[in-house]
Amino acid sequence: MGEFGLIERLSRIIGSPSKSVVLGIGDDAAVVQSPNSKAQIPNKFQISKSKFKTKEKLLLITTDTLVENVHFKLHGIPRELKALGEKALAVNISDIAAMGGLPTFAVVTIGAPQNYSVKALEHLYQGMLSLCKEYNIQIVGGDTVASPRALLISLTLLGEVEKECLLTRSGAKVGDAIAVTGSFGGNAAAKFDFRRYKIKPCLKAARALAKTGWVTSLIDSSDGLVRSVLEICKASKVGARIWQAEVPRSPRANLTQALYGGEEYELVFTVPGKKVDQLKSEAGKLTGCHIQIIGEVVPRSMGLRLVNRQGKRIIPRQAGYEHFR
Amino acid sequence: MGEFGLIERLSRIIGSPSKSVVLGIGDDAAVVQSPNSKAQIPNKFQISKSKFKTKEKLLLITTDTLVENVHFKLHGIPRELKALGEKALAVNISDIAAMGGLPTFAVVTIGAPQNYSVKALEHLYQGMLSLCKEYNIQIVGGDTVASPRALLISLTLLGEVEKECLLTRSGAKVGDAIAVTGSFGGNAAAKFDFRRYKIKPCLKAARALAKTGWVTSLIDSSDGLVRSVLEICKASKVGARIWQAEVPRSPRANLTQALYGGEEYELVFTVPGKKVDQLKSEAGKLTGCHIQIIGEVVPRSMGLRLVNRQGKRIIPRQAGYEHFR
Repeated sequence: MGEFGLIERLSRIIGSPSKSVVLGIGDDAAVVQSPNSKAQIPNKFQISKSKFKTKEKLLLITTDTLVENVHFKLHGIPRELKALGEKALAVNISDIAAMGGLPTFAVVTIGAPQNYSVKALEHLYQGMLSLCKEYNIQIVGGDTVASPRALLISLTLLGEVEKECLLTRSGAKVGDAIAVTGSFGGNAAAKFDFRRYKIKPCLKAARALAKTGWVTSLIDSSDGLVRSVLEICKASKVGARIWQAEVPRSPRANLTQALYGGEEYELVFTVPGKKVDQLKSEAGKLTGCHIQIIGEVVPRSMGLRLVNRQGKRIIPRQAGYEHFR
Repeated sequence: MGEFGLIERLSRIIGSPSKSVVLGIGDDAAVVQSPNSKAQIPNKFQISKSKFKTKEKLLLITTDTLVENVHFKLHGIPRELKALGEKALAVNISDIAAMGGLPTFAVVTIGAPQNYSVKALEHLYQGMLSLCKEYNIQIVGGDTVASPRALLISLTLLGEVEKECLLTRSGAKVGDAIAVTGSFGGNAAAKFDFRRYKIKPCLKAARALAKTGWVTSLIDSSDGLVRSVLEICKASKVGARIWQAEVPRSPRANLTQALYGGEEYELVFTVPGKKVDQLKSEAGKLTGCHIQIIGEVVPRSMGLRLVNRQGKRIIPRQAGYEHFR
């Protein structure tokens, strides 16, 4: 049934969260009330900024696991474990960034086959620590276990976000423009060899966007650009048109890689149409990266479609889209 | 070099934590400042209750991973996956309890070989959810990944604790009595078959003890009774005498199983000698369980020793104790 179906099924078993959970399973990170919170959070989550008058912060929680020969392959090259450590943390930082937040504390679990040396595990840690330093994250705990065959790294990252900066997948409105940072397909073109990945989470850009107050929804592009737009559509109950000629492609990437490649950590977001000019003129300075408008939000009944240069609609490939239309 | 040596080595790589980290790697759970905290936390952690005048809460983070054929074996029996789910959450609840705190939110990662059915994973979740209900915990996220051979469950559990209730391993003083809840060796006697485990974390008892203000140090007994006392000794820079005749044994457990068995979630703690009478008379009512004094805290130079009925000192077996003396 695939990862997405399983998550939905398990979510149903878990049932409705309590009032202290602002947003449970289903976004890039969970959002919960922090221990010292005084504000009342509405039971049903709504992006109603006016309800959050205090400078109160919410707690963010995300977790991601990488398994050898499933998510990465090792080649016995010295630098690769450091690169793997970087990637393991980067995917989690990207999840926190996609909520408009800042990462704070991490716990790290490493499952290592018996033939792994302590030196090898230290390399993994060094990769994580270089990103920790850059993004001001503290590793505060973890667990090291034996793993029968494959190396695995499981990270849980906490973060915090001011209530007025919280961004989710669910606020896109008909008429909004769909925008992205950076370019797409590069990691797919590099055949997902993580040693050649661009693994720089767009934390600075996401924070800058969150502070503008313009952004209506935000997600990272880890599952591919089209999939990311689809997730915004599902959460926001809208449709979308992606103008495929406007999708920024990485140097060696073809269109399929740019649209569906994934394993990238760019930002995909929506802003009201009337903010587009301001976004175009100020975004570079605000976020430090190139921002491109790649499409528009349309009514849900119109589904998710790609539009080519001739204006002809193309139904996106990949399973799952049929259910949506 | 073993798990404990590895943790120490990796802790050194991670380096000194920032001010927002009250207690990093090395206790049952990490303790950090929560997002809305206003109080200044001293850089070097000290149990100085007077510095914490507000009713402010700290955030607790713990993580534990169970790997098939390393931490548990499966026998293809229907109820066992539910029991495994219970155990996976229970070990983490016990870590939060050992800090004097209350568990709040969990994220769950399951790594499953391809032949696992969704039904099997649902049983795992049902085990976790039965404990979630009992202990008022919300599962707010997770990750489900393919695992090449073994089933694995990795849980990160958050908790919160009022600053004045925080208990660590490091406050034991010479002259304190060493006390325990429950009895020991039962799970070792059951040959670590988790379907027959007692997996009831002592959350109620730990909270009651934390609120008395008497307890100087607390740890759970997951690594075995003697090991737990040793960890208190190391963290508190003291020695200990364990009166082995006073150690409460589970029905079928022999002395070795009771002293070294582990995989149990009782509480091991210290209280000042002058509080012992009050503890004995009030503890049952406060904590709902039997409390037994099993030894005393002595100067560090005297090391950790077991004392038998004849008053003869026995050096505890197992590696690691030599380094301590």
